[in-house]
Amino acid sequence: MIAYTGLNEQSHGWVVAESAFDARYLAKYETIFCQGNGYMGLRAAHEESYPGERRNLFVAGTYNRFGVQEVTELPNAADMIQLDIRLNGRPFHLEKGKLLQYRRELDLRKGELKREMLWEDEQGEWFKLSFRRFVSLYDRHLIGQRVEITPLKHDADISIRSSINGQLTNSGAQHFIEGDRRVFDKELIQYTATTTETGIVFVHTLAHQLLENGVRIEAAPAPSMERRKVSLTYKRKVAAGKTLTLDKLASMHTSLDLEWESLDALHLQQAARHHLRKAEELGYCGQFRKHEEAWQAFWNESSIEMDSQDAFDQLAIRFAQYHLVLMTPAHDSRFSVGAKGLTGEGYKGHVFWDTEVFILPYFLYTHPEIARNLVTYRYHTLNGARSKARDNGYEGAMYPWESALTGEEETPEWGPVDIVTGTPTYIWTGKIEQHITADVAYGVWHYYQATSDQAYMDQYGYEILFETATFWASRLEWNDEKGQYHITDVIGPDEYKEHVANNAFTNYMAYWNITKAMACMKQLREADSQVYQRLNEKLGLAERLKVWEEKSALIYLPKPDETTKIIPQDDTYLMKQVIDLSKYRNQEQVASILNDYSMTQLSDIQVSKQADILVLFYLLEDWFTKETKAANWHYYEPKTLHDSSLSLSTHSMLASDVAESELAYEMFQKACQIDLGTNMHSSDEGIHTASIGGIWKAAVMGFGGVRSWEGALRLNPRLPEAWERLSYPLAWQGERLRVTITKQEMKIERLNPDSVQKPIRMTIHGKAYELVDQMLSISLEGGDLA
Amino acid sequence: MIAYTGLNEQSHGWVVAESAFDARYLAKYETIFCQGNGYMGLRAAHEESYPGERRNLFVAGTYNRFGVQEVTELPNAADMIQLDIRLNGRPFHLEKGKLLQYRRELDLRKGELKREMLWEDEQGEWFKLSFRRFVSLYDRHLIGQRVEITPLKHDADISIRSSINGQLTNSGAQHFIEGDRRVFDKELIQYTATTTETGIVFVHTLAHQLLENGVRIEAAPAPSMERRKVSLTYKRKVAAGKTLTLDKLASMHTSLDLEWESLDALHLQQAARHHLRKAEELGYCGQFRKHEEAWQAFWNESSIEMDSQDAFDQLAIRFAQYHLVLMTPAHDSRFSVGAKGLTGEGYKGHVFWDTEVFILPYFLYTHPEIARNLVTYRYHTLNGARSKARDNGYEGAMYPWESALTGEEETPEWGPVDIVTGTPTYIWTGKIEQHITADVAYGVWHYYQATSDQAYMDQYGYEILFETATFWASRLEWNDEKGQYHITDVIGPDEYKEHVANNAFTNYMAYWNITKAMACMKQLREADSQVYQRLNEKLGLAERLKVWEEKSALIYLPKPDETTKIIPQDDTYLMKQVIDLSKYRNQEQVASILNDYSMTQLSDIQVSKQADILVLFYLLEDWFTKETKAANWHYYEPKTLHDSSLSLSTHSMLASDVAESELAYEMFQKACQIDLGTNMHSSDEGIHTASIGGIWKAAVMGFGGVRSWEGALRLNPRLPEAWERLSYPLAWQGERLRVTITKQEMKIERLNPDSVQKPIRMTIHGKAYELVDQMLSISLEGGDLA
Repeated sequence: MIAYTGLNEQSHGWVVAESAFDARYLAKYETIFCQGNGYMGLRAAHEESYPGERRNLFVAGTYNRFGVQEVTELPNAADMIQLDIRLNGRPFHLEKGKLLQYRRELDLRKGELKREMLWEDEQGEWFKLSFRRFVSLYDRHLIGQRVEITPLKHDADISIRSSINGQLTNSGAQHFIEGDRRVFDKELIQYTATTTETGIVFVHTLAHQLLENGVRIEAAPAPSMERRKVSLTYKRKVAAGKTLTLDKLASMHTSLDLEWESLDALHLQQAARHHLRKAEELGYCGQFRKHEEAWQAFWNESSIEMDSQDAFDQLAIRFAQYHLVLMTPAHDSRFSVGAKGLTGEGYKGHVFWDTEVFILPYFLYTHPEIARNLVTYRYHTLNGARSKARDNGYEGAMYPWESALTGEEETPEWGPVDIVTGTPTYIWTGKIEQHITADVAYGVWHYYQATSDQAYMDQYGYEILFETATFWASRLEWNDEKGQYHITDVIGPDEYKEHVANNAFTNYMAYWNITKAMACMKQLREADSQVYQRLNEKLGLAERLKVWEEKSALIYLPKPDETTKIIPQDDTYLMKQVIDLSKYRNQEQVASILNDYSMTQLSDIQVSKQADILVLFYLLEDWFTKETKAANWHYYEPKTLHDSSLSLSTHSMLASDVAESELAYEMFQKACQIDLGTNMHSSDEGIHTASIGGIWKAAVMGFGGVRSWEGALRLNPRLPEAWERLSYPLAWQGERLRVTITKQEMKIERLNPDSVQKPIRMTIHGKAYELVDQMLSISLEGGDLA
Repeated sequence: MIAYTGLNEQSHGWVVAESAFDARYLAKYETIFCQGNGYMGLRAAHEESYPGERRNLFVAGTYNRFGVQEVTELPNAADMIQLDIRLNGRPFHLEKGKLLQYRRELDLRKGELKREMLWEDEQGEWFKLSFRRFVSLYDRHLIGQRVEITPLKHDADISIRSSINGQLTNSGAQHFIEGDRRVFDKELIQYTATTTETGIVFVHTLAHQLLENGVRIEAAPAPSMERRKVSLTYKRKVAAGKTLTLDKLASMHTSLDLEWESLDALHLQQAARHHLRKAEELGYCGQFRKHEEAWQAFWNESSIEMDSQDAFDQLAIRFAQYHLVLMTPAHDSRFSVGAKGLTGEGYKGHVFWDTEVFILPYFLYTHPEIARNLVTYRYHTLNGARSKARDNGYEGAMYPWESALTGEEETPEWGPVDIVTGTPTYIWTGKIEQHITADVAYGVWHYYQATSDQAYMDQYGYEILFETATFWASRLEWNDEKGQYHITDVIGPDEYKEHVANNAFTNYMAYWNITKAMACMKQLREADSQVYQRLNEKLGLAERLKVWEEKSALIYLPKPDETTKIIPQDDTYLMKQVIDLSKYRNQEQVASILNDYSMTQLSDIQVSKQADILVLFYLLEDWFTKETKAANWHYYEPKTLHDSSLSLSTHSMLASDVAESELAYEMFQKACQIDLGTNMHSSDEGIHTASIGGIWKAAVMGFGGVRSWEGALRLNPRLPEAWERLSYPLAWQGERLRVTITKQEMKIERLNPDSVQKPIRMTIHGKAYELVDQMLSISLEGGDLA
């Protein structure tokens, strides 16, 4: 295997680079080099095509279903990036000729992907080629692409065919009806397509400018049309040493865009052309500058810095922040973050518990206005959750394991092949991985605690809390023998255990959900608020409270063993066989155990896919002692294969919580490798968005020690040995802070000193402090960090 | 441009070869090396994938429409040929490493495609690789594929992933709903998919056998499933010098197959597995032998041989016969021959006049039982033609310009980009290229004349004749000024002239159609046959005859000018501008004139896309004098760009008719180059089936002189200078003959001498002869060949 070159190279911790071309690893780089802005995501497929490439452009929220038997997914829009380049009549691509120099890099600071090459063709001619592109953070509809080609030895005939190509699919599923293909004013092309089921109109518009040595050329490119495709071909004889440049500005608009909602396809096409003509006035360079400024503004506000002995840590956290921007539809609360964001077909753009538990915290504590959108998404999908509850014979709202636009359950029924039967395995998560409903409620509460956004709670939040509590109350099963309420036949966070009873995580979270709703309802009732009256009228709160009080008192909550402090993950886990798992731990291939065991066989072994009870310790941290947390960490971790990307960051953060900083650092570094490491296929289907959120969590909530509990801010920093300093922004109750931690000292600085200042209260390592002025400095030396 | 190597190489005139690999020309070879059996057609995409490949497998008649705005087409079935081969972990493909030896060849004699290579990988390892495949002529559902890999220097880890891949589309249009994916007994995989609109179930089944040095190995390939895809991966360490062989037998069944019509998907899957298990008993080699024997039987009966100074001629005629087998669904009269057969997406599998005028004659005169299917197809689609007539305000049957399963009009509305407006051009042929209706009637009559198949006529043929005549009678427009019936606003065979009036071809053929129907009807009536009574009841014949008699007498039939003998192609052609066309004639790029002129502009120039009036001279040869034919040939040919593949063979045959044998030979050789020549992109979208039929026509009907006129056989051979001898089979009125022509002599031999013999009458160069015994020999020396 060729070395995974270049990925760890850095330019001051801002640049991820690929220093050699290897067609086996296209998908890896397509994902990690993805560009986007939350509105759309563009995979980094090369300009020239290679077999196995995944040439994707996704637009947030534009779900469509291909046929009734499939699940809804984000459709792959038409490609506007691919170029058919011919040099002296021969196609340019890197598996022919000699690649004398090659470097591709993603500059996180400015969101630019750049590729520079010196290439010798099979005739011995030398060409310098440079490609750049960006997906604008300034204008979310805009993509820019620049190609520069310089023949170095002799004059050359250069031909570039630029297309809008709607022949692409999602692994064969075609989501679009072909619409108009047009050429306007010689150099602008437009292609319209409409999703088959949801009727969303996609308008792709592409404008070109040809330059020689920087001077615009009047060009008359040859137009051509194929099925679902419209192209322009530029041909030019270029003298040796001169540079031919093709600048492209492309725009993407859909009828789902809030600003175009009332337009029909024809007017949307006009608006898109008008928009692109305006954008063209600044040209490629001007638009790139605007985009660069937007990224600069983002980093100025949001940058996290650390002095680490391993410079990779700094790159990894920036890489995470970069991808958090890409994955999140900050512009529109109708959509949320998919498990692969907008970077690949994996998980079909569906939204999981990943959002609330792994991604939402980043936004809560850095960009609460975006966090508001994410929790509002769950209100937009509340009716879907109600209908899922009804369909399953329950009350209230049962959130879907996989969510898209409506909140209906979107989990596919069939998954990978079962090695025993030769048939696809049935996917149970959509039916029985039910903890998602409590996770959604927790996200709502978490947001409220960090922001005190009462308007959100009044309008959306309480209703979600009450409806989810209602679901749980109807879900509980009375066990006569034990005189308790049980929850059987579920999947907990650990997905290697299907059909278990009393998964500790699920039972505790259900209990938390019901009791939290009870507390809120009482408070609202006592205040005799309009909100209470409205919700009581709509939902009948009074009757519910009684049921909740009765049932919640009898929910079975598995307690730590008095001696070992181990909490059973479920009723039978601790009784199962213990086997030697070393063959499957720390393996390049995820889920390699499934090559040897079927899912049914896994049920009989003490083996976990991912953190289960540890996530509970994170969410409800004050309900468990540090001793219990440590004991369970050390019991369950050796049985965990970390076959989910949600596992390592949780283990890191919990290791921080139990003062195992070096273990925490080891797990943090492993978590950073999930997408950015040397496993060249782990990211093929897209970035692991929960893992990306987890990198931030392990760094800022783990080492940086940021937590909140019932509205109180806590800071318990615990830097690993390798870090000298950590500085991060922190949003809290409408204030913007910057926290800087060294081994010696902790500084908390107010970033908006002109705003009306109220004192900010917090506890630091258990001691209460108040930030009254602009800055609070605390010595950490010799303190009790326990 | 790399030389078009190898294509003209021959192994005794049976082998078409490619002696160098060039990824630019994938599509060319995929088409000409296509394999099939009339049931299915498999494009010759390589085992390993390359960008731009078109990996197609089409099954005759399985039309489906993607969305209401598109036209119906033959959907691309799942691929069972592609192999992901890794040698020591690195993917095998020919753009990496060094290709030390390469040869791919299609052996027409046995329908085998073989590729043999010596390849040095980037590490300097040498591998011998051999790939063979066939689409069985013995079992039309079966495909065989064999891979042999030999590491030559050192032991090697070889991995081969074999898949059924349903992710493919028709240029982006997905015609299938995904169905079951299964693995059976470790080495058999099955994938089912159903067409979205027509609900045709496709069952793909694939069985494997692994061998080392010819000995079967118990293998446990790793199964895997993706969306629309199921795979097995074989891994093996192979010692240097040993050969690893993977044999694959694949089967294709659909619910449209007559033998499975009543089965549901589940039973069809079972039947397919049973069928493939049976096939496996013979193994790859045994199945290949059966297939080879079937081809041998075909060639024994059908071979056309010639002694030519240019050995390419012999190869070209065999290539034509090979492809005539592939393109023709001889097994099922519900289907006919598409304009690209089963070799590509071009023309979407639709059936044109090409079938009656360019392909049917081959079958009429060699395999009349297949010709019967082709003319019966038009009866199956008669109701569609009736409905087209009704929709257009006419009576009777108006056949569609493009026909699929039902006979409804299938012509798409929009075509290539108009260079003036930047919009797609409107395609008028479906509305106004109406001569097809007379062409269909002519096909029926032609079949009847060559076979005397009265049962066909009684059951199907007369009804088609009467309904088409009825269409024409209702189509005629009375011109008061001239006191004639005109036909305005049509396209004749020459498609560079749209919206013309009184296209000579159309008017004459309409006249022929009506008068032929009149003659038949009178004859039936006089015989007072049951057929007359049945059709009279159904169609009301009596009233029709009167209308036909009145109108046909007044149809305007443009006559040759008394001096020049030129017949005007339409009312205005001869008045249009004459321009210098040399820039556009004999060009590699077809239709290059459309780069400079829009279709509207072409209307004002004396320029033709293809033979127009010459086709009329061929169909109604006795209605025009040799002088008229010659004058028009020489007038129109210089204005013809031969931008349709139907043009050259017609010109060749007509040149033979007017005794211009050398011109005929020149045109014949050009016609053979349409698919087999050095234009490396002319065949990208599929083989030119009409041109393939035209090669046979130019050879056997042109040089071989075979014609019939009103039931009388004519033989007017006229060999070109380059040919010493021509021998061809000839079917006539139930008899099978072989005709052998030299410069000196002509021999006509009966091939089924044991059958009841009636004398076979014919005219040879205008003189009457009778074949009474087994053989008739005629001296051609010194005879008047005029």
